[in-house]
Amino acid sequence: MNILRMCPILKREFMREALIEAQKAYSIGEVPIGSVVVYNDKIIGRGHNLRETRKDPTLHAEIMAIQMASRALGGWRLIDCDIYVTVEPCPMCAGAMVQGRLRRLIFGASDPKSGCAGSIYNLVDDNRFNHRLEIVSGIMESECRDLMKSFFKARRYK
Amino acid sequence: MNILRMCPILKREFMREALIEAQKAYSIGEVPIGSVVVYNDKIIGRGHNLRETRKDPTLHAEIMAIQMASRALGGWRLIDCDIYVTVEPCPMCAGAMVQGRLRRLIFGASDPKSGCAGSIYNLVDDNRFNHRLEIVSGIMESECRDLMKSFFKARRYK
Repeated sequence: MNILRMCPILKREFMREALIEAQKAYSIGEVPIGSVVVYNDKIIGRGHNLRETRKDPTLHAEIMAIQMASRALGGWRLIDCDIYVTVEPCPMCAGAMVQGRLRRLIFGASDPKSGCAGSIYNLVDDNRFNHRLEIVSGIMESECRDLMKSFFKARRYK
Repeated sequence: MNILRMCPILKREFMREALIEAQKAYSIGEVPIGSVVVYNDKIIGRGHNLRETRKDPTLHAEIMAIQMASRALGGWRLIDCDIYVTVEPCPMCAGAMVQGRLRRLIFGASDPKSGCAGSIYNLVDDNRFNHRLEIVSGIMESECRDLMKSFFKARRYK
């Protein structure tokens, strides 16, 4: 949490961008999760959940942001990159962060049902794997959580 | 293991196809892992590791096979699909199998370093997640393992 204290505005700025991505998902009926990848204080990858739209179970926000960042950097090692995501990652996305060797994961709301950065497992910071990320959680937590709640409430109503 | 006893030829036939995919990866200098997705006894998705070639950390064999299968079925729910992979999946790929709601995972060689279908974790058969796969392991294990060993031996020699 010292990181956040060091530079609170920057972190919120990037999480705000991840929230903009999540809103895009919301507007097309996708579970509203968004993500950005940041390198040298610049966004080099962004994505939102497109599972329903593209009919592909792998197209979560984080996967799309990581793929875009890889294209931007021209390599699969996203060393010194930070990933921001509005909701704690699932096993697939947590695993992709380890595969991509990202430096830091910053997420908004926890996901007690399938979160793998502390809730069910902590796959991104496990010394048995060949890479570990630093985790910062709870950034703009209420905004991230409220967007999810609103989405599922509306869906139940339908 | 009853499944294998029920239909041993079929399983080997599909694992042989996964091995053909792994050989393709080997031939272009990629870690030799291959995968196929089978629906109604037909291969509807196949892939091999392309991480280095396409410079993307998410392009493991299983992700590619799942993406192709989704396109073939026109939906993200790969219910009644089985995935064959030469090596036990990493967290990302194990997670993708749960996301895609596949029925069964059949793998060749275990991966004690990062395998997540029994070695380090078992992410594909965990009742805390919203879907679980049946696991069959050890199919053509020696062929799958030998291909990996040969690849890393040649790489060390280089």
